[in-house]
Amino acid sequence: MKNIMIAQSGGPTAAINTSLAGILDAAFESDQVGEVYGGIHGIQGIIEGNVISLTERLKGKKDKLDKLYYTPDMYLRTCRYKLKKPEDDSTDYEKVLETFKKYDIDIFLYIGGNDSMDTVARMSEFVKARGEDIKVVGVPKTVDNDLVEIDHTPGFGSAAKYVATSVREIMLDTCIYPYANVAIVEIMGRDAGWLTAAASLSAPEGCSARPLVYLPESAFDEDKFIEKVNEGIKSHGYVVVAVSEGIRDKDGNYISASETKLDKFGHPQLSGTGSVLVSLVKERIGCKVRGIELATAQRSAGHCASATDLAESFKLGQNACRYALEGKTGVMACLKRTGNNPYETEFSAADVLNIANKVKGVPAEWIDEENAFVTQEMIDYLTPLIQGETEVTYKNGLPDYLFEEV
Amino acid sequence: MKNIMIAQSGGPTAAINTSLAGILDAAFESDQVGEVYGGIHGIQGIIEGNVISLTERLKGKKDKLDKLYYTPDMYLRTCRYKLKKPEDDSTDYEKVLETFKKYDIDIFLYIGGNDSMDTVARMSEFVKARGEDIKVVGVPKTVDNDLVEIDHTPGFGSAAKYVATSVREIMLDTCIYPYANVAIVEIMGRDAGWLTAAASLSAPEGCSARPLVYLPESAFDEDKFIEKVNEGIKSHGYVVVAVSEGIRDKDGNYISASETKLDKFGHPQLSGTGSVLVSLVKERIGCKVRGIELATAQRSAGHCASATDLAESFKLGQNACRYALEGKTGVMACLKRTGNNPYETEFSAADVLNIANKVKGVPAEWIDEENAFVTQEMIDYLTPLIQGETEVTYKNGLPDYLFEEV
Repeated sequence: MKNIMIAQSGGPTAAINTSLAGILDAAFESDQVGEVYGGIHGIQGIIEGNVISLTERLKGKKDKLDKLYYTPDMYLRTCRYKLKKPEDDSTDYEKVLETFKKYDIDIFLYIGGNDSMDTVARMSEFVKARGEDIKVVGVPKTVDNDLVEIDHTPGFGSAAKYVATSVREIMLDTCIYPYANVAIVEIMGRDAGWLTAAASLSAPEGCSARPLVYLPESAFDEDKFIEKVNEGIKSHGYVVVAVSEGIRDKDGNYISASETKLDKFGHPQLSGTGSVLVSLVKERIGCKVRGIELATAQRSAGHCASATDLAESFKLGQNACRYALEGKTGVMACLKRTGNNPYETEFSAADVLNIANKVKGVPAEWIDEENAFVTQEMIDYLTPLIQGETEVTYKNGLPDYLFEEV
Repeated sequence: MKNIMIAQSGGPTAAINTSLAGILDAAFESDQVGEVYGGIHGIQGIIEGNVISLTERLKGKKDKLDKLYYTPDMYLRTCRYKLKKPEDDSTDYEKVLETFKKYDIDIFLYIGGNDSMDTVARMSEFVKARGEDIKVVGVPKTVDNDLVEIDHTPGFGSAAKYVATSVREIMLDTCIYPYANVAIVEIMGRDAGWLTAAASLSAPEGCSARPLVYLPESAFDEDKFIEKVNEGIKSHGYVVVAVSEGIRDKDGNYISASETKLDKFGHPQLSGTGSVLVSLVKERIGCKVRGIELATAQRSAGHCASATDLAESFKLGQNACRYALEGKTGVMACLKRTGNNPYETEFSAADVLNIANKVKGVPAEWIDEENAFVTQEMIDYLTPLIQGETEVTYKNGLPDYLFEEV
């Protein structure tokens, strides 16, 4: 019988718990699995020995598992903790191994993004080098959709659905005034424009205006931006702008540069991009302009999740568990798109060394010539991912999410 | 046969179009009604003669009327236009009357908040004084819930449902870190705390923490606030704060005062309250803190509307039309709560002179002693209003709202 440890890491999404539910589904069904544990606060919690029994809490509890499927954010909590190279300092690795030995762990499943896949790669190498028979498998997640090797990441479809829905509602909210009105919506995604691109789906049927969409993969030009906003005001009286937090000018400087700080992984923490554009419109056009940050809602809005995203996230969780039980290690559960009309996918395992620390941006040819919208290829790529609505149950008027103290 | 003119005014909600759909339902069903017109951009558009035929666009078009029911924001667009006193300057009134005569209008129905009810009061007095047999009836709306005479306003229940849902999701997003984490959510409502109070419903089942809730009806004390945040960090490791944009200190100064400007009605335009509190937590506690403005989503999130709110908004629209057809004028369609368990309401017409320009704040006794949450009375008041979910249809993954150019 194999014991499993699961943990979650990085920023939340609406589908990380769905992947956890998928792992648990496969684990609780399997006659090869003994105990299932959860590390609280990712690898940091495992280092510190902060572990709960998921078998005790959730096995056979269909109600809770059903709720977990629809609950956004992270049942097992998170961390942003970067392991040092083991050759420089192996202390953390030894502590993780200590916790694994304490609970007699055979399989470690880590749900996370690029940085977490780095942890998967390093841990799988470390246990192998130590001759330990512990399988380490990654389960992808990130609203940024910037992982390589996978067609799109779990959590992205739900975030994209929320962004497209919200920007549609912002368009309806912006078009109603008897004077020129501009709304600037700042969207997450770090250096990748995938999530911002979802705003390209927002214009409602019958609406001849469309949002301006600015991605970080193409240089942002202030003058052209002001020109496009003026054009929109002239033709429709209002303009909605969707802008990625990570846009840069032609010299590669962040538009929000004055407020840039680095996070623990050395990535710039971006914010204020929307405010910069608001000031620009105020100064150079002088019309009514409002800045809107979709903030944490775009990653946590479980009430607006994509059914397609949730179903895929569940299956990736199931698969990760099965890969590990089959003896695979150092891999991430992956999916490829094999068709778009109808939308079809194929699931497989990918070598995590090809994934860790790499970033997949939007291809230049998916950004339109004017650099203020996307091409049909991007729209065809995005559309299948937001299909279907979450069937989250409501209790007393609100989504009935699973919350447990840890 | 009576001709009807309808217009919408003030800030958007998820239910203003639902009231429009209710009016149209009653009008298109009635054998007393001839043509139905829409004034574009409220009273300002009627002054300018900007009118469309709703009979042509929507009569007999069930698909469009069904969509209108679920579409947030304002099909007829809006204005914020204050009529002068007719004794000072009657130009605008004459122009409105001219438009009414042009279209042979017998009934004018105006959907709006406190300021729009002022327009209803003045227009009904004016046409009466001029011996014109034109009935003027108001239909309430505002996410601020600050109208007197009515138990709660159309649009409020949907906004409250969105606020409670979002703050629940923000709690799940904030509780996951291995370090102290504070989220400060700024919520609309001007000088009334009703919408912010909806955050009191947010804690998910099984969660021992609850958000701190700060309403403008009670003085905000910085020291006590910091004390409460510190307590929350100590007991749970995280704190979510819901704060009304209009909170003031004990001397009555807005906490966001440095950025205060007046709008056209002389109301302060509030913003930045959340940022002030973020800075306060940064300086005095020094932990991780994030500011979140729910921004326009709280009034426009049709995808998260309350079925109860939509049903009531529709009925208030129907009733307004019927009151006018019965010969009432200078009234607003109103509702009273007659029971809470089960929730029951009674509909009637209220004299608009008792409503215009008045504001209903949260009663002091519904704010808890510590001034950082609400009492059970408030929770009992709010809970019925957010029940039921919108049945908006989805098309290609997004809410299929009705949009038409005007």
